[in-house]
Amino acid sequence: MYELGVVYRNITRADRAATDRLAALGSATVHEAMGRVGLLKPYLRPIYAGAQVSGTAVTVLLQPGDNWMMHVAAEQIRPGDIVVAAVTAECSDGYFGDLLATSFRARGARALIIDAGVRDVKTLAAMNFPVWSKAISSKGTIKATLGSVNIPVVCAGMIVHPGDAIVADDDGVVCVPAAMVVRTADAAAARESFEGEKRAKLAAGVLGLDMYNMREPLAKAGLRYID
Amino acid sequence: MYELGVVYRNITRADRAATDRLAALGSATVHEAMGRVGLLKPYLRPIYAGAQVSGTAVTVLLQPGDNWMMHVAAEQIRPGDIVVAAVTAECSDGYFGDLLATSFRARGARALIIDAGVRDVKTLAAMNFPVWSKAISSKGTIKATLGSVNIPVVCAGMIVHPGDAIVADDDGVVCVPAAMVVRTADAAAARESFEGEKRAKLAAGVLGLDMYNMREPLAKAGLRYID
Amino acid sequence: MYELGVVYRNITRADRAATDRLAALGSATVHEAMGRVGLLKPYLRPIYAGAQVSGTAVTVLLQPGDNWMMHVAAEQIRPGDIVVAAVTAECSDGYFGDLLATSFRARGARALIIDAGVRDVKTLAAMNFPVWSKAISSKGTIKATLGSVNIPVVCAGMIVHPGDAIVADDDGVVCVPAAMVVRTADAAAARESFEGEKRAKLAAGVLGLDMYNMREPLAKAGLRYID
Amino acid sequence: MYELGVVYRNITRADRAATDRLAALGSATVHEAMGRVGLLKPYLRPIYAGAQVSGTAVTVLLQPGDNWMMHVAAEQIRPGDIVVAAVTAECSDGYFGDLLATSFRARGARALIIDAGVRDVKTLAAMNFPVWSKAISSKGTIKATLGSVNIPVVCAGMIVHPGDAIVADDDGVVCVPAAMVVRTADAAAARESFEGEKRAKLAAGVLGLDMYNMREPLAKAGLRYID
Amino acid sequence: MYELGVVYRNITRADRAATDRLAALGSATVHEAMGRVGLLKPYLRPIYAGAQVSGTAVTVLLQPGDNWMMHVAAEQIRPGDIVVAAVTAECSDGYFGDLLATSFRARGARALIIDAGVRDVKTLAAMNFPVWSKAISSKGTIKATLGSVNIPVVCAGMIVHPGDAIVADDDGVVCVPAAMVVRTADAAAARESFEGEKRAKLAAGVLGLDMYNMREPLAKAGLRYID
Amino acid sequence: MYELGVVYRNITRADRAATDRLAALGSATVHEAMGRVGLLKPYLRPIYAGAQVSGTAVTVLLQPGDNWMMHVAAEQIRPGDIVVAAVTAECSDGYFGDLLATSFRARGARALIIDAGVRDVKTLAAMNFPVWSKAISSKGTIKATLGSVNIPVVCAGMIVHPGDAIVADDDGVVCVPAAMVVRTADAAAARESFEGEKRAKLAAGVLGLDMYNMREPLAKAGLRYID
Repeated sequence: MYELGVVYRNITRADRAATDRLAALGSATVHEAMGRVGLLKPYLRPIYAGAQVSGTAVTVLLQPGDNWMMHVAAEQIRPGDIVVAAVTAECSDGYFGDLLATSFRARGARALIIDAGVRDVKTLAAMNFPVWSKAISSKGTIKATLGSVNIPVVCAGMIVHPGDAIVADDDGVVCVPAAMVVRTADAAAARESFEGEKRAKLAAGVLGLDMYNMREPLAKAGLRYID
Repeated sequence: MYELGVVYRNITRADRAATDRLAALGSATVHEAMGRVGLLKPYLRPIYAGAQVSGTAVTVLLQPGDNWMMHVAAEQIRPGDIVVAAVTAECSDGYFGDLLATSFRARGARALIIDAGVRDVKTLAAMNFPVWSKAISSKGTIKATLGSVNIPVVCAGMIVHPGDAIVADDDGVVCVPAAMVVRTADAAAARESFEGEKRAKLAAGVLGLDMYNMREPLAKAGLRYID
Repeated sequence: MYELGVVYRNITRADRAATDRLAALGSATVHEAMGRVGLLKPYLRPIYAGAQVSGTAVTVLLQPGDNWMMHVAAEQIRPGDIVVAAVTAECSDGYFGDLLATSFRARGARALIIDAGVRDVKTLAAMNFPVWSKAISSKGTIKATLGSVNIPVVCAGMIVHPGDAIVADDDGVVCVPAAMVVRTADAAAARESFEGEKRAKLAAGVLGLDMYNMREPLAKAGLRYID
Repeated sequence: MYELGVVYRNITRADRAATDRLAALGSATVHEAMGRVGLLKPYLRPIYAGAQVSGTAVTVLLQPGDNWMMHVAAEQIRPGDIVVAAVTAECSDGYFGDLLATSFRARGARALIIDAGVRDVKTLAAMNFPVWSKAISSKGTIKATLGSVNIPVVCAGMIVHPGDAIVADDDGVVCVPAAMVVRTADAAAARESFEGEKRAKLAAGVLGLDMYNMREPLAKAGLRYID
Repeated sequence: MYELGVVYRNITRADRAATDRLAALGSATVHEAMGRVGLLKPYLRPIYAGAQVSGTAVTVLLQPGDNWMMHVAAEQIRPGDIVVAAVTAECSDGYFGDLLATSFRARGARALIIDAGVRDVKTLAAMNFPVWSKAISSKGTIKATLGSVNIPVVCAGMIVHPGDAIVADDDGVVCVPAAMVVRTADAAAARESFEGEKRAKLAAGVLGLDMYNMREPLAKAGLRYID
Repeated sequence: MYELGVVYRNITRADRAATDRLAALGSATVHEAMGRVGLLKPYLRPIYAGAQVSGTAVTVLLQPGDNWMMHVAAEQIRPGDIVVAAVTAECSDGYFGDLLATSFRARGARALIIDAGVRDVKTLAAMNFPVWSKAISSKGTIKATLGSVNIPVVCAGMIVHPGDAIVADDDGVVCVPAAMVVRTADAAAARESFEGEKRAKLAAGVLGLDMYNMREPLAKAGLRYID
């Protein structure tokens, strides 16, 4: 259950340097480095292709059809943050547009992750302000009911705590708990360092079957080839 | 219930000048200017990004898997119209492709809004003929059963009367009743005239909390800040 | 029911020349030429716009969350093939990324059709390796359970046999049984040869009602015009 | 677009006797008698099996998460009415429970058709108050924003005018325009009068192929039997 | 791809005695006995609770909104058959009601499995004619386009060949290939014979952890208990 | 992100007496008493109608297609508990059947809430073991990968902590944080004490408009009556 009507001003943000390294590593590699956990559901999609960001989470809990708390959240943004927005019920309304994006950017926000809809997507793309959302909708919202800022929220099926590291790209969105961000960035970088060599081998026609020594375990599992 | 097998030839189209002004204002602003109503459901999506149009509705009611009435509708199109197509049942077949688009354009149509599927989307994009649809599908249709043209239809959850003004862009599709189009265009333009100033303030770091005087009503609603 | 744990090495591929002609004809025309059958469900979408390919099917049956058989399938790919992947249960995980794409391409594959998710979509687009999938997801997979290669599979609602011809573009994906590919390519080409002339007429303002002689059958069906 | 904040007190209800005959005929037969139109989308389901009702529509337009207008609608109910409720946006909240059902019944309502959620379904079943809804949900609603009563609404994809006849059973919900109710009831009764005889023949083993003389048209359409 | 316009009259039905034993074993046990395959997707649901049947498949391929082939299929039914119906496109119309059920039963059919909608469900329940379907809908169908009878079809994601054994109950629907029915019935019966003993132990408070010797493998996998 | 491979043995359960009072109050009243929060998404449905339970949560995190941790959870159940099961990915497999239900009941469990599928529903109903699930499916699961027991989980969109109170009935499922259960039970009881009087008035024909003094606020909001 959610605590309503509160704004936590002092949150512990994940290590800045480690968080910033996550963007280039990408959501797939980071999520693998954590043991294949931390992924928000894949119905969250970027509003335009190509953005690749990481940052620390400022969380906001919204009421259905009401974006009042987005303005409250704006004040809590610090440079390097990504706003992660959840809603207390299913809603596809357009909670966020180019005015809020202008304000978020002025405060230093790098992106918005929202389990609802956004609008003004043409302008947002022109501004290069990346958003991952569940829907795109012209539907406006009102400002009447309190939610909360910087409480733990459930966004697209994943618990996000304020200060957690977020990494998002065309493949999806991953949440890395603040306490794990340094070791995750290291593990992800290690994973990636092997990729170039593997790619070269595969491009040369070497099969994964041989490169990963899969033939024996496949045979053991009972795989039969039929001519 | 729908009247089947009829074509209304004389429809009263919304004011041309006011209708034409809606495109630049956009679906979000127009929908706000009407009091947050008139929006078709957000599952309708543009087949390519960036189109922004407005026009007067020629409506067509189709049967599932049957696009016969599209040809009947073509004859009723006048320059400045947008065809709004509904189906009597759920269907994602590809009712419309580049040949029909060529015909619609020759008659003066600006766009198609369809609560079903379309195909030839690569060619449609190359032709710059914008379509908002529920699906993209190669699935062809037959020509066997009558529907109607220029009757009131339900498209993506919204009643559209022939002659209503339609505005569509990357954010969605809005229907403005013919009788309201002048006052809606004026109200939307008024809304927009304030946006530049607001954007400048927000870009300078002014918070919406202050610009919109939200701090007092938030406190009254019981918002608590916790350090 | 599926046969598990088998790889058929010798499959009969559809006629190469006829298969290769299908790409330019496109999924909509090919599907019409077969009598409006053969279409995979339209929830399969390309990961980037504009690709248009045809090829012979190498089929692979995957287990949920497990992409082991993708590596087994890679060895069975010959130049001109398209891999068609089905899963034994609903799954949106990211079974395929840039490393597998590098391997598939090195073996001569032209595309992947998968009834599940893929990742590394930015790199796949940069590589120009086309994929039609149900989802995009960072979610990684394991390598633990056997499926099969080159058995008949159900992909997006359609039975695909190994060796069938596949054609895919922005409108969707169509499967042409190997035995029908020559006559289908011919019939599709014949359909297309009339399109230029039709397009010219429609662009000149001729109505489909007249070009297709629809006025009489419409009147017989009872269509009434009301002024 | 909807007119908000209005209550039409004087509506013309469909012929009472004809409306009342519809319940026994059932939604499938009535919908066939109208030419296979008038059906609300099948995602509306009864909250308990076995109810079979008809009545005249009192329509109500609700705001998302707000059931204020249900109380306004209650006053407009007359004996023999069925309340048909639409919402201005997608919402599955529980708009209606046993207290409102008690009030509706006291006013003479026979049922509720609602394109949203309801709750207290165990009590509603015990009361024998039938409801067709999109969802069942404990989620409560507030009373803050105006909708309208007795305007034309879109409920589950169908336009319903106040005073139209509604028939609902385990198979679904059909709307018969007030002007058509007498002739529809007659046509439906005529359809049904043949059913007993048909059922007896089919039960005796006569095939529909013979009873409906389908063998010749099937052969003409090209059906081939293969032994 | 489907072969259209054909009826195969001579099909090889699965062993009768083994097929008949499957009903009492149930869909879950049978599906386990085959190695957790053969299950149709769980969106197929019984129209009433409690039915438990098995039989041999007569397959029928239908066109969207058209139930003509159901009458053709009726003639091919023999006592002990279950009709398995697929559609060439997504459709929720009511293809089947009490008249067809009367005819199917007269021919000896035990049930219908249909990847579409049915109607007259109250009467079907009263007749005790079990149906597993994707939807319930009053929507009627026409009789205009050919499909096929007794070809392999894809129903709810699974390939069903004519003559395969089908078992269906409240948990779902499973298809057992004709060639595997005897050994599957034996394996399922063997599985079930151990269930009574297990149930008695578990009811006495023995934990599955101990009964199945899971403590050691769990510890090996790294499970930690924290007090 | 979830902590994997751990079992917390000592959890603080919500006050027993207050928890036990929640069942009779019902999910709708309890959720209202908390301020309309705490509700799990309404896609969770009871497998049979009429059950009404409350209890303390033992939580379990499952892997897709793997029910190993259900057996680990069984040992942690104490009389009066309700097992709340989440999965690390979307899955509709049948994780739970009559054997596990026998074991859970022997340990004192009152119900299962699961964001996935279950099977043996006929037997579960006969046993009177209530389950709220997302799906019903014969699909079996394996026992291969660790999850966790008694960590905070997200079930149907809501965070549930071990020891929280759960109340579930035909209307849905509500989670009450352990610290709030006494005051919530009191508030819910207070709400309910007024219902009998209200029901009597409404049954006598008094309108909610008058009973709740709505006429003035409706007029203030601008409601217009049109004769």
